[in-house]
Amino acid sequence: MTGHATRRRTAGHDCRVTDFAKGHGTGNDFVIVADVDGEHPLDRAAIARLCDRRTGVGGDGLLRVVHAAKHPDGVSHAGHADWFMDYYNADGSIAEMCGNGVRVFVRYLREHRLATGDVIPVATRAGIRRVDVDGDLLRVDMGPARLLGESTADVTGHRLTGRHVSMGNPHLVCRVTDPAAYDLTRPPTVPADEFPDGVNVELFTGDRDHITMRVHERGVGETMSCGTGACAAAVVALDGPGTCDVDVPGGRLTVTATDDTVTLTGPAVLTFHGTTKP
Amino acid sequence: MTGHATRRRTAGHDCRVTDFAKGHGTGNDFVIVADVDGEHPLDRAAIARLCDRRTGVGGDGLLRVVHAAKHPDGVSHAGHADWFMDYYNADGSIAEMCGNGVRVFVRYLREHRLATGDVIPVATRAGIRRVDVDGDLLRVDMGPARLLGESTADVTGHRLTGRHVSMGNPHLVCRVTDPAAYDLTRPPTVPADEFPDGVNVELFTGDRDHITMRVHERGVGETMSCGTGACAAAVVALDGPGTCDVDVPGGRLTVTATDDTVTLTGPAVLTFHGTTKP
Repeated sequence: MTGHATRRRTAGHDCRVTDFAKGHGTGNDFVIVADVDGEHPLDRAAIARLCDRRTGVGGDGLLRVVHAAKHPDGVSHAGHADWFMDYYNADGSIAEMCGNGVRVFVRYLREHRLATGDVIPVATRAGIRRVDVDGDLLRVDMGPARLLGESTADVTGHRLTGRHVSMGNPHLVCRVTDPAAYDLTRPPTVPADEFPDGVNVELFTGDRDHITMRVHERGVGETMSCGTGACAAAVVALDGPGTCDVDVPGGRLTVTATDDTVTLTGPAVLTFHGTTKP
Repeated sequence: MTGHATRRRTAGHDCRVTDFAKGHGTGNDFVIVADVDGEHPLDRAAIARLCDRRTGVGGDGLLRVVHAAKHPDGVSHAGHADWFMDYYNADGSIAEMCGNGVRVFVRYLREHRLATGDVIPVATRAGIRRVDVDGDLLRVDMGPARLLGESTADVTGHRLTGRHVSMGNPHLVCRVTDPAAYDLTRPPTVPADEFPDGVNVELFTGDRDHITMRVHERGVGETMSCGTGACAAAVVALDGPGTCDVDVPGGRLTVTATDDTVTLTGPAVLTFHGTTKP
């Protein structure tokens, strides 16, 4: 396992060198750091440095690969999943789950021979997520969607009506004629009493089986892709069980809704491996 | 020199693997690819792929390291500089010179033992640039500034008056009370007849020996740092020979103006080394 060790100490120096990989799922990109025995926790500042796009490696977030049994948040799942996805946002804050991130995580496990087979359970802070591998595509069970009430968003002067959907995190899904016609460089304004923690806003157009969407992620801005956002928008488009292709700026995702749950299928690739300077 | 070879061919495959480094000068970041014998030119699409921040390595531009004698644009300088800085913008278009990029280029040459000593001439498309190394800082002769007339810029509703300065490329340098008060998410509007190819717009405040500035680079947007922009703003602040510290969002640069030329001093660091996936 030393080949997967994350960090080396330069003899006689305090400085650390980090080996990492980089990958993305439909343009949602991650720094991946393996620390299989959980011996080198990364503090918030270190994660933010690694995720800085100009002075670090750059990414929307960081995925740390740790044996489930060796991570405090993973140990309770250790009998059901070998690996814990220790996932952080780019600012170093803890994140629970990410539909694009978990595919990249599993791609890393397979390419580094840390997991074999086509059904791979992953322990996350939101519980176990089963990932099915089918060639270039990976499918993950995202759990059920909860369809809540209607609400409104003001997108740079345009008042839109949308559906409030929870995928664990909150979404406001707005059907529009042309998603490209809107300016998402500024955050949409939403009713603060309905969304005290903010909301991700999706603008979509299309039919039941194929939609095109853009997303503004709370606290981030417009992104190339949002896994839970694709699920939320597809559930609104489907309005019942079925399968819907979702074109996001970073590529194509496919969402299948049943009465019990929602699955998200999409690509995940590793783009490069590297070593930071001490 | 094989240790510096850029690309490897996987036996029996057409796919290529690229070894690269990443570095930045005051937050202006570059992918660095060594191809010392100039045997593997990168086409525009390949450069754009490498510079993509989510699906590639990510950078404001790409620096290709080639023996001056082995590059068509460098061969005429081969007696005066060992290395040619084959520099490209992130979209793959050819660029002439970059004050931050040439420091990163020299940092790379030294760390990879491709150059020794503290005075290193670099061949560029704008001619030979001499770089002086002083520990963490590198100084480069940027050539003379040409002070032209006054003009105006509209920065999201604020009409500003500024000085047109040429550092080979055009700048409009505007003294303001507080650079932080302006919105540079959209391009400033300038008189098209005066700036047919666009113009970089600097907003600065401060005294003769120390200014703070932000810059909107034409075709790019607001950036962390612009070497020629720092020179242009310092020349306006100095209004004659002297030395001026220039705080940009990505750090501190120091500009010295004489009657003959302008020099730019600043840091340059390599942040990581990597290998792309085929």
